[in-house]
Amino acid sequence: MLLNKDRLHARMAELQLDAVIATTPENVTYTSGFWALPQWIRRGPQAYVVWPAPGKGEAEIVTSTATLDLVADQQIWVERVRRYGAFHVDGNPDAKDPVSQRLIELQEAHDHGDALSALVAGITDAGLSRARIGIDEIGLMPGQLEALRERLPGASLVPAAGLFRNARAVKTPEEIARLARVAEIAERSIKAALGVAREGVSEVELARAFHAQTVQDDAFPVLGCIGFGERSALMNVQPSDRRLRQGNVIRFDVGGRYRHYRADIARIATFGEPSEEVRRYHRALLAGVERACELIRPGARVADVFEAAVETVRREGIGHYRRNHVGHGIGIDGYDAPSLTATSDEIIEAGMVLCVETPYYELGRWGLQVEDMVVVRADGVERLMATSGDLIVVAP
Amino acid sequence: MLLNKDRLHARMAELQLDAVIATTPENVTYTSGFWALPQWIRRGPQAYVVWPAPGKGEAEIVTSTATLDLVADQQIWVERVRRYGAFHVDGNPDAKDPVSQRLIELQEAHDHGDALSALVAGITDAGLSRARIGIDEIGLMPGQLEALRERLPGASLVPAAGLFRNARAVKTPEEIARLARVAEIAERSIKAALGVAREGVSEVELARAFHAQTVQDDAFPVLGCIGFGERSALMNVQPSDRRLRQGNVIRFDVGGRYRHYRADIARIATFGEPSEEVRRYHRALLAGVERACELIRPGARVADVFEAAVETVRREGIGHYRRNHVGHGIGIDGYDAPSLTATSDEIIEAGMVLCVETPYYELGRWGLQVEDMVVVRADGVERLMATSGDLIVVAP
Repeated sequence: MLLNKDRLHARMAELQLDAVIATTPENVTYTSGFWALPQWIRRGPQAYVVWPAPGKGEAEIVTSTATLDLVADQQIWVERVRRYGAFHVDGNPDAKDPVSQRLIELQEAHDHGDALSALVAGITDAGLSRARIGIDEIGLMPGQLEALRERLPGASLVPAAGLFRNARAVKTPEEIARLARVAEIAERSIKAALGVAREGVSEVELARAFHAQTVQDDAFPVLGCIGFGERSALMNVQPSDRRLRQGNVIRFDVGGRYRHYRADIARIATFGEPSEEVRRYHRALLAGVERACELIRPGARVADVFEAAVETVRREGIGHYRRNHVGHGIGIDGYDAPSLTATSDEIIEAGMVLCVETPYYELGRWGLQVEDMVVVRADGVERLMATSGDLIVVAP
Repeated sequence: MLLNKDRLHARMAELQLDAVIATTPENVTYTSGFWALPQWIRRGPQAYVVWPAPGKGEAEIVTSTATLDLVADQQIWVERVRRYGAFHVDGNPDAKDPVSQRLIELQEAHDHGDALSALVAGITDAGLSRARIGIDEIGLMPGQLEALRERLPGASLVPAAGLFRNARAVKTPEEIARLARVAEIAERSIKAALGVAREGVSEVELARAFHAQTVQDDAFPVLGCIGFGERSALMNVQPSDRRLRQGNVIRFDVGGRYRHYRADIARIATFGEPSEEVRRYHRALLAGVERACELIRPGARVADVFEAAVETVRREGIGHYRRNHVGHGIGIDGYDAPSLTATSDEIIEAGMVLCVETPYYELGRWGLQVEDMVVVRADGVERLMATSGDLIVVAP
């Protein structure tokens, strides 16, 4: 299961919530296993999961009739489903495959007309119309929260996007397995991209090789910052026709989505021998990541990790190094909690999956960056990476 | 330019708006050319475009300091840029390339701290603090519209997501060129997928070949519904390990994103000779699309197009055919206006780009679908497709 049920329930108990409602694509999938295509590819389509506290009822998915095939075809641990809206599918009572049978059954349920009416009915039927309910406010469309309050005057609806984000910070074994796989796919994709590096190749051509490997491994391209030379210093560099030349830095800040889970890693290569300065700066950045990883363990203060990483980079070679953060959580969202900043009061916990990074951008020259994905275990970090963060030298 | 400036200005004049503000990723890119990576890949990061009515000032981009490299590196037609938030990039005054130089210049501007403060300052500095302003309400985070109203008590802020959607419905030549290209990429990807069709191949394997072509052509995978046999009847079918067998229908409902523009097309193949029923049903669906395309021209009523398409499918072979819509606009969003429904009062206009479709799903058996992308010209439709919607028979 993706959902960290114990942690979600603990947070709900702290906030005295009788139920929570997921509304963003990430939280709907996280809470139920249900991946509702339309809400993942554009804003507007609505799907929800109503998740009562233990002993307060059954969880329920609320979604459009047009997406019931995905409910029927996916591994979902929420059994109750409420639908809204018309969508014409011809049922064949002779259909023998279990997905078609389940879809026919799901379509026979009452049509609640629209998303909000279905949600109101779900809350009411669950006996939660006078309950204290946390609602993930980010996935709603403007005006919907106000409309819900009007239609459920006895309920107390409190914003819960932060609660979901907190629950998601500590990963389940299934989530860690997916994150390990998507990190591996990103590494394989970097290797494939470097496989086409030669004098005169363009950033776009390298990106093609990168994404070809990503889709070959059944992941979807998301982040594909790949830049050569002076373009490697552009923090969000998008591949262009810039051609590779001897001595260029190649910066990758990349990662796809595999079974809904994200990767975000960074590696640096040079085409031909790097300058002494690039070597020294890169070593300093790598030392910063390594120092952070030494300190990351359950109970460590995020702010201490930040300070140690930045101080290490400064001491090891980039005296003027400055950063706002040295990493962040990753999961079904590319930026999960915690954010590794100087001012955070968060504490590292076992089961967190973190991107630990020390990027450095010097305009007109090059950008260097090491970013690893790690999972926090009882005795420290377990790297989810097969490759080291060492500088890669590609022979011209 | 992506933006249909005349149409936007006409709609603004009708609603007596002194300015409009884009907030969603789609509308920010559409209005300015600025593609702000963070807001495209997750919810939360904010970028805006303030677009005054003609004669009421200069347009301005509002974005985070962490995205200024994208402003510097992209073809953007809005020159004024306001930034917020800290992000450390080391400037090198010797940087000679124009992108680095522009980024250094952009970073020297005042930091407004946070997105909303920057937007308030932008509105105020433009002399719009007592103006009537249309704001695309969908891209804002919960509470931000209320906060804006509090900080700009003299301004009248009215929701404008519908106005942007209306403006986007009639495409510019640059948009049509991108849509033609992404449609072509989807067709090429279907051809590549069918190139690996053989007894025992899985849906996932076909999908890999599909997406490999998409990324080879510099597009990003978005929609990849590919199903065999009984799975072709699942409307949103996601590729599985289901293996291809003789006589199976293969349904593609697919399309990527190329330079931010979306494709959405459908084609049907059979592996081996189809049954007479599949041939007849498919011919009826194709006739429906063809009939719709005959009627689509400037001035035609959307509801008439819908009715003619559905009636044609019924008459030509599927007497019980039912649909909620027979297509929709497409552009930077996968579902642009208009939606081709029975109850629409919209009128077709020259320059619209439409997906015209007649899907049919029969559970446990097969799904069939024809979906073409067309652009509306003065004298009727111009198809953006290289291939016909005919049934494709793949020899086993």
